[in-house]
Amino acid sequence: MTIRVVVTGGTFDKQYNELAGTLTFGETHVEQVLERGRCRLDVAVQVLMMKDSLELQDADRARIVAAVRGCAESQVVITHGTDTMVETARAIASAVTGKTVVLTGAMVPFAFGSSDGLFNLGSALSFAQVLPAGVYVAMNGRWFAWDDVRKNRELGVFEAIRTR
Amino acid sequence: MTIRVVVTGGTFDKQYNELAGTLTFGETHVEQVLERGRCRLDVAVQVLMMKDSLELQDADRARIVAAVRGCAESQVVITHGTDTMVETARAIASAVTGKTVVLTGAMVPFAFGSSDGLFNLGSALSFAQVLPAGVYVAMNGRWFAWDDVRKNRELGVFEAIRTR
Amino acid sequence: MTIRVVVTGGTFDKQYNELAGTLTFGETHVEQVLERGRCRLDVAVQVLMMKDSLELQDADRARIVAAVRGCAESQVVITHGTDTMVETARAIASAVTGKTVVLTGAMVPFAFGSSDGLFNLGSALSFAQVLPAGVYVAMNGRWFAWDDVRKNRELGVFEAIRTR
Amino acid sequence: MTIRVVVTGGTFDKQYNELAGTLTFGETHVEQVLERGRCRLDVAVQVLMMKDSLELQDADRARIVAAVRGCAESQVVITHGTDTMVETARAIASAVTGKTVVLTGAMVPFAFGSSDGLFNLGSALSFAQVLPAGVYVAMNGRWFAWDDVRKNRELGVFEAIRTR
Repeated sequence: MTIRVVVTGGTFDKQYNELAGTLTFGETHVEQVLERGRCRLDVAVQVLMMKDSLELQDADRARIVAAVRGCAESQVVITHGTDTMVETARAIASAVTGKTVVLTGAMVPFAFGSSDGLFNLGSALSFAQVLPAGVYVAMNGRWFAWDDVRKNRELGVFEAIRTR
Repeated sequence: MTIRVVVTGGTFDKQYNELAGTLTFGETHVEQVLERGRCRLDVAVQVLMMKDSLELQDADRARIVAAVRGCAESQVVITHGTDTMVETARAIASAVTGKTVVLTGAMVPFAFGSSDGLFNLGSALSFAQVLPAGVYVAMNGRWFAWDDVRKNRELGVFEAIRTR
Repeated sequence: MTIRVVVTGGTFDKQYNELAGTLTFGETHVEQVLERGRCRLDVAVQVLMMKDSLELQDADRARIVAAVRGCAESQVVITHGTDTMVETARAIASAVTGKTVVLTGAMVPFAFGSSDGLFNLGSALSFAQVLPAGVYVAMNGRWFAWDDVRKNRELGVFEAIRTR
Repeated sequence: MTIRVVVTGGTFDKQYNELAGTLTFGETHVEQVLERGRCRLDVAVQVLMMKDSLELQDADRARIVAAVRGCAESQVVITHGTDTMVETARAIASAVTGKTVVLTGAMVPFAFGSSDGLFNLGSALSFAQVLPAGVYVAMNGRWFAWDDVRKNRELGVFEAIRTR
């Protein structure tokens, strides 16, 4: 079983540009994360785009949906900015069936010491292996169905919409 | 749903004693790991012992089994040294039913920069939420049934015994 | 002998605000740096301001000059943004005599893993102990007199103006 | 001006061997430290040996002395284990004149997150540029003459023997 990992950017992959003093995108850090985790899963990493999720357009989401639908794998993990992760999950859910798709990201760039990215990718890859077909968000150690999750921007965490 | 986290020591929790120049145990790092991962699960951390898993005696394993059997929670994650993790998994499997028990650890102490501990705990907590009742090892991003896993000491990774 | 450390902000002290996704100032990291370095110097840390050095006004520089001139110590280290560090050094040199004043900073925030801040503060504190009275910039492991240094913005390093 | 950096091992360069679960030597980390510090000094790094300083024999010290005496540079920094750093300093002082020689090390390996190595090497390289000819120990942000320093093993710090 191979797990497809689709990289779309987001805080997870931001890095500090020391000449400009700004946060930018360079290469993805997903391979570093997998190496750090001594990951031995069969993983196919695909860098689809490197974007802040607030800047994603409909055409970008269409490309993400197409990547998920078109790949050979039935387990897909997507690294994504947290701000519109739920919106992308919804777009995928409306177009993809029969696959387990898990979106994850980070509140702090992996390149910075205090990042949650390593924890989150470990979590997302695990959920992708055992959850039934469907579209999910994996953040804060939890999993959420795509239609029962929102980002609480005040707290910087994800939560269920319905009482559970 | 609360997940019980039973801490037993192992490389995961080792730290550098700069006065002695040796690796020793101090306080557990599990809370730091949960904080780093922005974990929002309901977790009950119990520090049962702080031991190198090569030094675990039958009496130690009996205490671990008793902690798993006796706790109120149905989901249990155990941090454990990798060298005898499989042996402890077997002891639990022979005595506990009706609970999802996931053992994990680390190849490099969490206190050192290059640790897999954050990835592994994210992974183990996720598997504990969705795998059916049983005893498992979660390492290298993968999960293994307690009776189909061994540590490959040459490579420093866990692998299935039977061909899958 | 006590060394005065005057904190003015700059990249050295920037940190990632995970709710806003931006770089901001919070508490200074100078004490953390001193602790990490197991520093046993007698140091008096004074947080004068927390500003990006591109935003420093004449009034801000006047406050820095006054702090250096007014303090009891003869050795002063100043943490400062790199972009206008040389300008502040010049302002101090025009108003302060009889003290060894060393400005330093960082190209990457101390809070991020790959920061040069720990190296630079170790360097600046050392130069402050042995260089004669005067105003200096300490960056890239080197020291520069205030009137023979510029930041090379293309390379992100400091260099002497005159050939040495 | 080129600064010679002689690597002899010590805690500074120890690393965690995840297969054996022990602290060992591999490649030196000095180049990584210089890169992290964005060091722009002209530095010639020479890996002379990789030893715990408690295991240094007279023949090892003779090799260190010969390296310092024989090199073309007048500024020499030596990375060294802390336990017998003072003994090696004494051996150098008895055989070398006309050079500024600064010994430094670390209480925690550079490879671990909480290391003082970056601070100490920044400090030692700075002292080497400005102290007059002589043999010194640079630790804890301070410099000590070779005949007025000892390691306080209870505190894990270096201190002057005579009251200053």
